[in-house]
Amino acid sequence: MNVGDRHYRTIWLNEDGRSVDIIDQRWLPHDFRIETVGTVDGIATAIRDMWVRGAPLIGVTAAYGMALQTLDDPSDEALDAAWEKLHETRPTAINLRWALDEMRNLLRSLPNGERAKAAYKRAAEIADEDIELNRGIGRNGLEIIRAIAAKKKPGETVNILTHCNAGWLATVDYGTATAPIYLAAAEGIPVHVYVDETRPRNQGAQLTAWEMVGHGVPHTLIVDNAGGHLMQRGAVDMVIVGTDRTTADGDVCNKIGTYLKALAARDNDVPFYVALPSPTIDWTVGDGLKEIPIEERSGDEVSLVWGKTASGEIAQVRVSPEGTTAGNPAFDVTPARLVTGLITERGVAKASREGLRELFPERRG
Amino acid sequence: MNVGDRHYRTIWLNEDGRSVDIIDQRWLPHDFRIETVGTVDGIATAIRDMWVRGAPLIGVTAAYGMALQTLDDPSDEALDAAWEKLHETRPTAINLRWALDEMRNLLRSLPNGERAKAAYKRAAEIADEDIELNRGIGRNGLEIIRAIAAKKKPGETVNILTHCNAGWLATVDYGTATAPIYLAAAEGIPVHVYVDETRPRNQGAQLTAWEMVGHGVPHTLIVDNAGGHLMQRGAVDMVIVGTDRTTADGDVCNKIGTYLKALAARDNDVPFYVALPSPTIDWTVGDGLKEIPIEERSGDEVSLVWGKTASGEIAQVRVSPEGTTAGNPAFDVTPARLVTGLITERGVAKASREGLRELFPERRG
Repeated sequence: MNVGDRHYRTIWLNEDGRSVDIIDQRWLPHDFRIETVGTVDGIATAIRDMWVRGAPLIGVTAAYGMALQTLDDPSDEALDAAWEKLHETRPTAINLRWALDEMRNLLRSLPNGERAKAAYKRAAEIADEDIELNRGIGRNGLEIIRAIAAKKKPGETVNILTHCNAGWLATVDYGTATAPIYLAAAEGIPVHVYVDETRPRNQGAQLTAWEMVGHGVPHTLIVDNAGGHLMQRGAVDMVIVGTDRTTADGDVCNKIGTYLKALAARDNDVPFYVALPSPTIDWTVGDGLKEIPIEERSGDEVSLVWGKTASGEIAQVRVSPEGTTAGNPAFDVTPARLVTGLITERGVAKASREGLRELFPERRG
Repeated sequence: MNVGDRHYRTIWLNEDGRSVDIIDQRWLPHDFRIETVGTVDGIATAIRDMWVRGAPLIGVTAAYGMALQTLDDPSDEALDAAWEKLHETRPTAINLRWALDEMRNLLRSLPNGERAKAAYKRAAEIADEDIELNRGIGRNGLEIIRAIAAKKKPGETVNILTHCNAGWLATVDYGTATAPIYLAAAEGIPVHVYVDETRPRNQGAQLTAWEMVGHGVPHTLIVDNAGGHLMQRGAVDMVIVGTDRTTADGDVCNKIGTYLKALAARDNDVPFYVALPSPTIDWTVGDGLKEIPIEERSGDEVSLVWGKTASGEIAQVRVSPEGTTAGNPAFDVTPARLVTGLITERGVAKASREGLRELFPERRG
């Protein structure tokens, strides 16, 4: 999407045909830094230290890591070592593993001399496939926004609340929850986005708000506490969030706090949608509350808040007393009963086993 | 309550019989500073610049402001001027106005020569009355905690979630929502408190957590997003919050985000209690959602987070991009239907017109 007047993806191949440029997201929203990465080690650092984040983007970045390896040494042993090095950067990231396997399986099937060319071609395809998935989500979500706009007076704003960052920064372009918003804005529907700041890591305040500024989408940053009140007062027409993992029953695991917004949406008859590329559906899991373990992260993410001082330095400030420890569950599970619909690249499914199987009949069995 | 080994109130008369000492809450939780205030102007500054906050404490502080005035010039004109000066510090604070009127009406009825003595006596009474109200809330809430503890195995922890700071720092001592917790801890019930950080102003992280550290109550700081997840997983036995204003129908206006916790409590069968001294009941208002206007505060409270840097300085950091504006509704309304009970100094009422009138029959009519 746009950063000011210019269109960017989050990762792209340089003219040298070897190295990639990435947006180093660690400095957002305060600095927009682009870094050139030209080695497997560089890719590993970029993933491990979260220069890039978001499941789809991590996968694409890792694919380019494998491609870089083929230029240096395309042997099976070298590819295995690169696979290990890249995998251990974020060992629980499913897209990472998928992309690494995809690349290794392809390359092993080819003579060493053809591996480099094939690797760059496949990495580019994985990036393009991500964009296509998101465009599909965007088109399907756009229908919902159009329908809301059609019930309003001409020119009246459609207010959308989102939580965390399921934006283009988490993908190669468009994002998942943001894709319908960007498409609606592009066709002139007056959208306005309430951006939950999304404590503790503030991905809403730091990333989603930055995306909206860059692309010129009207938005208002709010604390995570405010959404319920806004829904009570009729200020929100729909909620769209992303998901890290959706179960075959339609339960949605997403950033901590999503469940509270779903409750408020239900209590105020506000439609609550989840945008997801179908690879995010975990067909092996049914009951999200019982079966999905929730990662407990460092309490420092709660106690220390990162930002920019008045003098322009990036600094952390402690918000709590010495002697207080913090708990930090990173995700929660929103039960399917609270979800109005699952917006996928293939269409909008009811959040239920039947709804999902209707849209993905190949999963019946 | 205690700060380490020593018991404190938030305000007390000095041995000189004139000036008061207050805890300057602007520096909490990072510095514990006590300031001596000996003039009406000093009191006005302390209220306006939020050295003291919390409705009951503001009222008591203002009462001492009127008392200080009587030492300087006890004439009707001087008292009127002091009333004005003190009232304009926080013009919407109901307790402030009540305390100022209480003092002025009393003093006007007396000869000038008797005013100073009567003023200090009445200010001390107002402080003691606040403590008595809170002790009453504490005793009634304690019964609820005892009942929860009785259903558990001996020694098993009672987990209580609270939002914002309805603690002793907002009152003269005990607090409202915290009073039952302190009494339960004092009689050896193993309580543990989940403290919502309470963005944007972080009163939970800064004040409630500090209270718990000082008094030695086991607690865990969490982001406002986390409470729903904890309730889903059975980690919370009850919620207790305070209130700025409760309607005659039992609707509860409190710090933004309270409503979301009430929804989560209902969805998970966790009892949700509101602790309130009866003067907080607004008998003139019925439907809180329709009739209570919600203050919209500066967006800077959202965009800028205040804390202590690694080098020990107090600093603000910006968490959002330039170009993003923030919305900041300060309160929300929790409908009575979500409230398990209203813990008052007189007993626990059902959150309904009937429930409140049963407990306060003098309000019938």
